[in-house]
Amino acid sequence: MLKKMLENVRKNAPLVHNITNYVTANDCANILLACGGSPIMSDDIEEVEEITSICGGLNINIGTLNRQTIPAMLAAGKKANACGRPVILDPVGAGASRLRTETAFCLLKEVKFTVIRGNISEIKTLALGAGTTKGVDADIADTVSDDTLDNAVAFAKKFSEKTGAIIAITGAVDIVADKQTACVIRNGHPMMSKVTGTGCMLSAMTAAYAIANPESLLEATAASVCAMGLCGERAFKRLGKNDGNASYRNYIIDEICNLTGEVLQNGAKYEVR
Amino acid sequence: MLKKMLENVRKNAPLVHNITNYVTANDCANILLACGGSPIMSDDIEEVEEITSICGGLNINIGTLNRQTIPAMLAAGKKANACGRPVILDPVGAGASRLRTETAFCLLKEVKFTVIRGNISEIKTLALGAGTTKGVDADIADTVSDDTLDNAVAFAKKFSEKTGAIIAITGAVDIVADKQTACVIRNGHPMMSKVTGTGCMLSAMTAAYAIANPESLLEATAASVCAMGLCGERAFKRLGKNDGNASYRNYIIDEICNLTGEVLQNGAKYEVR
Amino acid sequence: MLKKMLENVRKNAPLVHNITNYVTANDCANILLACGGSPIMSDDIEEVEEITSICGGLNINIGTLNRQTIPAMLAAGKKANACGRPVILDPVGAGASRLRTETAFCLLKEVKFTVIRGNISEIKTLALGAGTTKGVDADIADTVSDDTLDNAVAFAKKFSEKTGAIIAITGAVDIVADKQTACVIRNGHPMMSKVTGTGCMLSAMTAAYAIANPESLLEATAASVCAMGLCGERAFKRLGKNDGNASYRNYIIDEICNLTGEVLQNGAKYEVR
Repeated sequence: MLKKMLENVRKNAPLVHNITNYVTANDCANILLACGGSPIMSDDIEEVEEITSICGGLNINIGTLNRQTIPAMLAAGKKANACGRPVILDPVGAGASRLRTETAFCLLKEVKFTVIRGNISEIKTLALGAGTTKGVDADIADTVSDDTLDNAVAFAKKFSEKTGAIIAITGAVDIVADKQTACVIRNGHPMMSKVTGTGCMLSAMTAAYAIANPESLLEATAASVCAMGLCGERAFKRLGKNDGNASYRNYIIDEICNLTGEVLQNGAKYEVR
Repeated sequence: MLKKMLENVRKNAPLVHNITNYVTANDCANILLACGGSPIMSDDIEEVEEITSICGGLNINIGTLNRQTIPAMLAAGKKANACGRPVILDPVGAGASRLRTETAFCLLKEVKFTVIRGNISEIKTLALGAGTTKGVDADIADTVSDDTLDNAVAFAKKFSEKTGAIIAITGAVDIVADKQTACVIRNGHPMMSKVTGTGCMLSAMTAAYAIANPESLLEATAASVCAMGLCGERAFKRLGKNDGNASYRNYIIDEICNLTGEVLQNGAKYEVR
Repeated sequence: MLKKMLENVRKNAPLVHNITNYVTANDCANILLACGGSPIMSDDIEEVEEITSICGGLNINIGTLNRQTIPAMLAAGKKANACGRPVILDPVGAGASRLRTETAFCLLKEVKFTVIRGNISEIKTLALGAGTTKGVDADIADTVSDDTLDNAVAFAKKFSEKTGAIIAITGAVDIVADKQTACVIRNGHPMMSKVTGTGCMLSAMTAAYAIANPESLLEATAASVCAMGLCGERAFKRLGKNDGNASYRNYIIDEICNLTGEVLQNGAKYEVR
């Protein structure tokens, strides 16, 4: 199943429109090429609707957010919805500033997202601020571990139900959920947190997976999350004694480039809940 | 001849003003340093004319175009013209949106370019939209191969005549032409298309070559195109079994860094038409 | 002493707010992670004060300066001052355009900086334009070498006295000075000048060192400068015959990632004047 998801990306070469931050834009472009997709970065309100309409889908990332691009994000998101194309939201830093939090809420209100991917703290900000009482949701811990997993899975399903999006919460343990089903994924390596933009890269790649697998969005998102984690593991094994986080970044993208459906299928560590 | 072009870059260390996209700006800066030049990136209307006037030449790239920088591109381009400095245009995505296409036309109208470098589809957009009938030019295929080469060479020469610029059309086969003479270049490797920004990097490097070789602009542009392709070939040979597009990106820049005039001269595969 | 500085960074994991250029932002983020810190890039006036207030300190870099971010630099700088957090200034290209020079002066006037790091030409621009007569300062040569060292040290101390900031002048020989004491540092490798952003990366890392060592700002800055130079030396030794400046960039960050307090202490080459 995961194998098929990856192969569909390689076969369809999905073109992804990215409205994203300038810190990791280059890595996002290269990981899209690595996985079999193709990137376009464009964020000016004058052109985003046209660009979205020639692409297979849209990846909105609010890192290095600035006021000029917010209307572009809204316009492109609505256009993608109108064209029936997948839209991914990466709410980088939601909760860290009013601008990011309010922009994320505004996007959630105006655009129907296909996948929302963030860390637990970002996703909690989106869910709690969106009008729910603090009751149950506030019980969600700030890291996902075996102790807090049941709560986090329930939270992810509930937030998926509310938004209609696949929810991908990534961290030491990853959760990918729709309203009924969650994949708990245990791929990845702690050193990935020493590389800037692994989350951004994953969101960009997830857009490619969603575009190439429109009938299987939960599986497609899970495949993308497994692929990133597995390649983090494989790249870690490749590290020589003088290698550090810069080489590790390159090796992760290299592994995505060389990943086959079979290796993904065999290396993925997930359970369905 | 190509040897001399490269050696002039190493000797003169040309300083290149880049108004370029944020996706590949870092790679453009590093390839300029690798080839023997030096980069400045600057795009605010308040300073671009001053920056251009202290540089040897200007590289304008319309990737991640935004409305703020368009006036800066025009002002810097005119300043470079007034100072008699080379100006390179990389019309990234011309044809993909009205904003990019119209900006490219506006730049062509207001600025005299020394070199225009793009893929066949971008260059066709510039040539067809600029007022020519669709007759002959529309026959130009969307890829340059042996079957379509004669037409593409004639098209490049004609567009050079119209614009007064050296035209560099890059792809599986590259064409570098002025109105009378074309170099057909067969260096390069298909995997270069898996690295974001190889075109942007080539345009930046071409600015350095043009600055260092003002009397031989056709040869200088051909040398830069051959150098990029040859280094793509050499970098490909260096790939180990775990390497992918991220390592390949680094190896290409490394090869540009280590390239000698002799290796370029011996490795260049071109014919004059 | 240097050992302790580095270990405090690893222990405290300082979060650095960066308002910086888009050319080297990714490298700055990765070197912050490599040294033990953590990066946030944010430059919109609507959020910079909030972001600064959740960070340990602020790094302002005026490369690819644009008018939108100047008010954000001022607001964030003042906020950091109000919160008692370290603020680093990297006056990239001061002297190259009126916009950069005037912005640097404006920042110096409105914000109290903890450390100012630049090359001799940038620092001279700040010092000479700030109202001093051209007399003595104009004698400062444009490179720091053994012949010009005494003058440069005196100049750095004097500029530190005027600004209240630690002054770090980096080049073939580095000087880190407060008004009374200067460290003359002889780590580094000439090939570092072939990598874009080594200065930007150093400024970002220096912010992390200053945050983690608030009682020892001169030593902390010297430790950061020694670390960068030493890792430049160590990365150079790692270069294979096909490696060039792209691999070198990665190796430098890798070395920062793997650097221990002991290796820093033993490898640092400095004298106090």
